[in-house]
Amino acid sequence: MEPLSQAERADALDGLPDWDHDAGRDAIVRSFTFDNFSQAFAFMTQVALLAEKADHHPEWSNVYNRVDILLTTHDAGGLSDRDIDMAQAIDALVE
Amino acid sequence: MEPLSQAERADALDGLPDWDHDAGRDAIVRSFTFDNFSQAFAFMTQVALLAEKADHHPEWSNVYNRVDILLTTHDAGGLSDRDIDMAQAIDALVE
Repeated sequence: MEPLSQAERADALDGLPDWDHDAGRDAIVRSFTFDNFSQAFAFMTQVALLAEKADHHPEWSNVYNRVDILLTTHDAGGLSDRDIDMAQAIDALVE
Repeated sequence: MEPLSQAERADALDGLPDWDHDAGRDAIVRSFTFDNFSQAFAFMTQVALLAEKADHHPEWSNVYNRVDILLTTHDAGGLSDRDIDMAQAIDALVE
């Protein structure tokens, strides 16, 4: 599993305008805000099912109505296509 | 809603040997490790139901098989009985 090159990463991030690059981790991060905890956890459940299906799991945290997600690929030592695919699938949940 | 006094907090923590006091936040914290993500998220779902029922929500994060939980009471400006009750209920899930 290879990490994305700098050019590939730039292309991928252009297609994910709501995600930011965490250079220190070579990861992508996005925060989601919902009306309340119930909605936030419903979203987390959907992400958990995506993650388990793809066998690619986020690093994430939740405080009441907010969910912060970080995606990186440990096996690649940084951002890979698997993160980009997961970010697109997560975005599709909230569009 | 009042925070626990120092003596009440000490008593409460004696009854919660698996939780640590985070003095900076006046919170209690515990890490849980499971066999895999599926088990970790199943536990999170149980905690979410407890939290919603009590209307008292954790600050928590998950990385694969690990779940870190922090409990504090924002309305009290620190640790309250509600955190102690929630910690006991969470402990009961994994005993």
